[in-house]
Amino acid sequence: MPGELVKALRAVAGSPNVSTALAVREQHGRDESMHRYLGSSHLVVSWPCSACLCTFPGSAVGLALMSAPISLGQGGVCFNLTRMDRITALSTEDFTVAVEPGVTRKALNSYLRDTGLWFPVDPGADASLCGMAATSASGTNAVRYGTMRHNVLNLQVVLADGRVLHTAGRGRHFRYWGPLPCCRKSAAGYNLTGLFVGSEGTLGLITQATLRLHGSPEAIVAAVCAFPSVHAAVGCTVQVLQAGIPVARIEFLDDVMMAACNRFSGLSYAVSPTLFLEFHGSPGSVEEQVRQAGEIVQLNGGSDFAWAWELEARNKLWAARHNAWYAALALRPGSKVGSPFKQLVCVSSGLIVGHVGDGNFHCILVFDPADLDEIQRVKEFATRLARQALALDGTCTGEHGIGLGKRHLLCEEIGELGLTIMRQIKAILDPKNLMNPGKVL
Amino acid sequence: MPGELVKALRAVAGSPNVSTALAVREQHGRDESMHRYLGSSHLVVSWPCSACLCTFPGSAVGLALMSAPISLGQGGVCFNLTRMDRITALSTEDFTVAVEPGVTRKALNSYLRDTGLWFPVDPGADASLCGMAATSASGTNAVRYGTMRHNVLNLQVVLADGRVLHTAGRGRHFRYWGPLPCCRKSAAGYNLTGLFVGSEGTLGLITQATLRLHGSPEAIVAAVCAFPSVHAAVGCTVQVLQAGIPVARIEFLDDVMMAACNRFSGLSYAVSPTLFLEFHGSPGSVEEQVRQAGEIVQLNGGSDFAWAWELEARNKLWAARHNAWYAALALRPGSKVGSPFKQLVCVSSGLIVGHVGDGNFHCILVFDPADLDEIQRVKEFATRLARQALALDGTCTGEHGIGLGKRHLLCEEIGELGLTIMRQIKAILDPKNLMNPGKVL
Repeated sequence: MPGELVKALRAVAGSPNVSTALAVREQHGRDESMHRYLGSSHLVVSWPCSACLCTFPGSAVGLALMSAPISLGQGGVCFNLTRMDRITALSTEDFTVAVEPGVTRKALNSYLRDTGLWFPVDPGADASLCGMAATSASGTNAVRYGTMRHNVLNLQVVLADGRVLHTAGRGRHFRYWGPLPCCRKSAAGYNLTGLFVGSEGTLGLITQATLRLHGSPEAIVAAVCAFPSVHAAVGCTVQVLQAGIPVARIEFLDDVMMAACNRFSGLSYAVSPTLFLEFHGSPGSVEEQVRQAGEIVQLNGGSDFAWAWELEARNKLWAARHNAWYAALALRPGSKVGSPFKQLVCVSSGLIVGHVGDGNFHCILVFDPADLDEIQRVKEFATRLARQALALDGTCTGEHGIGLGKRHLLCEEIGELGLTIMRQIKAILDPKNLMNPGKVL
Repeated sequence: MPGELVKALRAVAGSPNVSTALAVREQHGRDESMHRYLGSSHLVVSWPCSACLCTFPGSAVGLALMSAPISLGQGGVCFNLTRMDRITALSTEDFTVAVEPGVTRKALNSYLRDTGLWFPVDPGADASLCGMAATSASGTNAVRYGTMRHNVLNLQVVLADGRVLHTAGRGRHFRYWGPLPCCRKSAAGYNLTGLFVGSEGTLGLITQATLRLHGSPEAIVAAVCAFPSVHAAVGCTVQVLQAGIPVARIEFLDDVMMAACNRFSGLSYAVSPTLFLEFHGSPGSVEEQVRQAGEIVQLNGGSDFAWAWELEARNKLWAARHNAWYAALALRPGSKVGSPFKQLVCVSSGLIVGHVGDGNFHCILVFDPADLDEIQRVKEFATRLARQALALDGTCTGEHGIGLGKRHLLCEEIGELGLTIMRQIKAILDPKNLMNPGKVL
């Protein structure tokens, strides 16, 4: 069976695009999280070109398609789509672009540089845009520009049986692998695009995404300020939003996180709960936003309100926030960062980084990946934290989806009926459970 | 059978909340469109309270639930939900509110008046917010604040078999009819909320919606300007958006429409292609937006750029746009307005009102509802128009959904596979096809 599978894959993808080497399989069996995989559980890794994906006889040989797959003791194929990296369509008048899975956020924005447009969703890492769609990514700009849910207009998806679905229609120039059409707004039938955004590879392989672009802001100002308490910083955030100030980013770091950032990046910020803000707009509008926000900061006891206009100065100001992940890791060399993605209402200890403008916090726990007992304690804490969020009518995951770590919490949040309907939808699109089996549901 | 049905309905909803009177049935069998119903095809109309909806033995007696239903020759029950009109939860810190189906857009904004928050989606009419969710409503503010797709956070839905689904989870205070939880952002499982937004009553009855609120703008400025051609007006729109000016509304009326508006409202606007704009923000930001937009208007040959700050003056300026529907009707007394909702790229004749900022136009055809031949010609034109939009990679419906009038176009737009998947999803949630049968699919 494995031999046949590899042969079939080589026939459609070409020999150089298929590997069974242990090192390659292990590399594709890991991610940055604490969840452990059997790295070599893949039978094979393939880098397909687009056209061969839907001709590969997936269901015929009963293979399972996995990204960083969990070990089901049955192996599977991991499709690495990074070699499909074309930007297939751009309409500067419609503010839309279509990209293949290998195109990353930074690559797209670099491509758009001279158009006056940009794609603002920014989860931090230079992620694949189709991957961001699959995981319903969010990030620091969501408060002004929305998340992937708001900025994905159409998806081309290869289903488990090789059929190709265009979630918002095929367009005139319909070819299986032609550029996706670029309509900005449609109310035609059920919202299949929204169904696939956040489906984490469990309903099909996203092979192209049409995205909504935004006008680049003429001016950007970054600002940082320290607060006497977490409560004051959060109160300031709420008031900035209530005042209708169109802030682009508003991020929170607690005192422990600020101390770690100071040490890691050689900075000298106050070791206090801190807000990082960014304002986008015309020079005059941005100036006024800074003035208005400054008044609210002062009312909430904020101090050291520093701001910067130029790119270099802005980058310096935001350095602490941008390096928070690595600063946390550096607290314990050789450690991993776990359970970072919890929706919290208020947490008074631990390292916290929060997209406060959009209502979710990351609570970062640094642990030793070799210490199984500590991993267990981290997991228990993460579950307790998520349950607390649910008890406060929150969600167990504000972004990055359910993945492996929170499958047990999904039912508590969504209820048995919601879960049943999700399972039935999965069964329609992937009746043999080939696509990323074991994830989400 | 009809007798049993009415008896069963009266038992759960109470006698005063059930009617079989012909006048009532006819009133519920019509809408404002040109699509013709048999007004008395309902067996019965009911105004349920919330709690009885899920106890009504719908599937047991095989009834069909319809809003303005098409005649299937088999009757059905029309549930009129206007008496469920509570605002069940409001969180000014989370910017969320939960409403029942009887709450309209204007009622909500009047309720919110002193909170500094508002709900900006504005399809023109004072529609029910749950109805706006069901039809994926959009409107003039969409360019800045998004459509219903972007502003619905959670839905409570009664399914065909009486089960109650909370699309984004139930929250701590879970009671069937308690307030919906108010989490702003979730990535937990598949996006069921997005599936129900725009499903037009075919998947279940929406009995409560949690909505995202926005900070009320401190200042609002309205502006109007005339252009030498449609092309110039559309070019101006694209450039305003490309410049990143955060315009709240940007609406287009063609010369025929402007003439009709002048006559209807006693105005003296230039009879030219015209843009109506609105800017929201702080006073300084709004002033700068007007200045920037004014420059772009001038570059595109626009003239008579007039603007107004105060509410009364703004209303006067926008009067033409707000009364466009009635101005069109007044062109031919006793007429109806047909096929108004076409996504067009460019149309050089007819009455046109366009949400140009968001990329869709309404092409308004005024016809005599008694002239069957004219109705036929209007329908043929509407289909031709939609096909032209599809040929240009557009959509046959930018807002207001598919409804009755465009079911035949859905397959052309979405493709056979997409339609099959939609039908399978419908079969999961409503296997006996009881909910708004004959609509959409």
